[in-house]
Amino acid sequence: MSTKPVVAVVTAADEDWPPGLEPLHGEAELMLCNDQDSLSRYLPQADIVMVTDFRTDLLEDVWPDEHRIQWIHATSAGVDALMIPPIRDSDIPVTNARYVFDRPIAEFVLGQVLSFAKDFPGSLRYQQQHQWRHRDTERIEGKQALVVGAGSIGRQIARLLGAVGMRVDGMARSARDSDPDFDRVHPSDLLLQQLPEADYVIIAAPLTDETRGLFDAQAFRAMKASARLINIGRGPIVQTDALVQALRDGELAGAGLDVFEEEPLPEDHPLWTFPNVLISAHMAGDVVGWRETLIRQFIDNFRCWQQGKALPNQVDKARGYVPPTS
Amino acid sequence: MSTKPVVAVVTAADEDWPPGLEPLHGEAELMLCNDQDSLSRYLPQADIVMVTDFRTDLLEDVWPDEHRIQWIHATSAGVDALMIPPIRDSDIPVTNARYVFDRPIAEFVLGQVLSFAKDFPGSLRYQQQHQWRHRDTERIEGKQALVVGAGSIGRQIARLLGAVGMRVDGMARSARDSDPDFDRVHPSDLLLQQLPEADYVIIAAPLTDETRGLFDAQAFRAMKASARLINIGRGPIVQTDALVQALRDGELAGAGLDVFEEEPLPEDHPLWTFPNVLISAHMAGDVVGWRETLIRQFIDNFRCWQQGKALPNQVDKARGYVPPTS
Repeated sequence: MSTKPVVAVVTAADEDWPPGLEPLHGEAELMLCNDQDSLSRYLPQADIVMVTDFRTDLLEDVWPDEHRIQWIHATSAGVDALMIPPIRDSDIPVTNARYVFDRPIAEFVLGQVLSFAKDFPGSLRYQQQHQWRHRDTERIEGKQALVVGAGSIGRQIARLLGAVGMRVDGMARSARDSDPDFDRVHPSDLLLQQLPEADYVIIAAPLTDETRGLFDAQAFRAMKASARLINIGRGPIVQTDALVQALRDGELAGAGLDVFEEEPLPEDHPLWTFPNVLISAHMAGDVVGWRETLIRQFIDNFRCWQQGKALPNQVDKARGYVPPTS
Repeated sequence: MSTKPVVAVVTAADEDWPPGLEPLHGEAELMLCNDQDSLSRYLPQADIVMVTDFRTDLLEDVWPDEHRIQWIHATSAGVDALMIPPIRDSDIPVTNARYVFDRPIAEFVLGQVLSFAKDFPGSLRYQQQHQWRHRDTERIEGKQALVVGAGSIGRQIARLLGAVGMRVDGMARSARDSDPDFDRVHPSDLLLQQLPEADYVIIAAPLTDETRGLFDAQAFRAMKASARLINIGRGPIVQTDALVQALRDGELAGAGLDVFEEEPLPEDHPLWTFPNVLISAHMAGDVVGWRETLIRQFIDNFRCWQQGKALPNQVDKARGYVPPTS
């Protein structure tokens, strides 16, 4: 007999409640969906779906023919897992966690750039062997970065790399003149022409039909042999086998990878073994307190929804991401 | 019968000529001093002494009673090895490699700050074990840095850390109001009062009577348990045994050490084994081409000297470093 809206909280398999939902207890019925069974049961009753599992592939299987879902919120920047036909082709608004991860990810990227330039991984390996080994390092000042994807994350990366004296170009759907954060923004169809200019190529794009597999053998051949690739976007934007081959062939000098086609990266994957590859576990944006921040953002949006206000950070479902506001 | 000035080039033991001296071949007699024997032979004939070996302890033993030395140049920022009584108490001007290392060292420090915040060493260790392990990381934005030593290197560190959103205070001989690069500059006698405020404590001071052993057990106790120490100054500013004990006792959360009381760090030293210690081989400022840059700077100074102009970057020998110009 409740008239409170029902919120289906979709987490990864067997995961418990995300922290910080307490403020909603009087205002919403919260249903934990952490397996196929609970998802099948609660989705047809839900008014709102909040998805914390950015890798979910369950939704397509259990999506109900009849439902009353009015809003879907992803507590992630990427919404690729939600762009299934019944959602994409519906008029249900989808919102995301825009802005939350931007600055932490930008810091992470800058840290990886500096790790490559200063060979911190080499220092750590020598340390493990108790070896004192002086090497010359590289400057980052004046080096050229190319940020593929000029959305809010890419923009924050550009700001931070620019603040420490790097030159930063961007790749976006279309060229832009006089951008405040990028030296130049090139249209995405010029990727192969721009890649040879960059010392650091940073993938900060959403996973869409246009970006899936974008970094293939041809792209790696176009990069400088001294260049490094950093991917904090989505794994399938890179053709992993082609990357492994390009690293073996020395077509690029290294890769910092936080995201992968298959996550977790399988234990026997060759990527683990390259000394010039930095692997992290899809954590670039996850600074202490990130789960609570995401839930606070959802609660703010929930209040907008209750009051009939426009939902912030709505995904353009034809494109698969939140378009720039400016 | 040559009237060309004689330049004694003092390198580390058995080291060859530094690169880039060719432009001087018509203008100076260059003498390579890479052991006690050559140093004893050439020093009494030298008009100019150029010291590339910043660790040299030979000078005191072989310093001639009679000499005609008019200028001593160190191709390093620190000149502690040159502050021996016969030089210190003479009126021979001593110059250093001011500015050359500033930006590269600042980049190195920022990289270490980010390595700690993002736990890159942890990621590398998990990578070596092919383990996918998500962890929460830390922000650097808004964190408090304390730069001990507000000379040209410390200032460049402050600029770079400030540019990425950290708050940066400095410690200097005396307090300064409204500094362009530091939020506040505290006088050095307030070190113990300032240490508890800092998330990152960065030693960028010269080695002098005042700074030798400055970081002792009491200083480490004053630091936050979550704070990290970064030393790119000189090893003996830190009491190594006290640091090891403080790390064991958890009085600070980590240390990034590029310089040591004994260099190379002995193979059996306990510092190698701490997972929260980052060791590098006195290389923070040594970006590709650094040796050539240092020699170009010496040649520029040599031209000044020949033309009777004032030598830039003169060390205040009473203090043991080049005082701020402003």
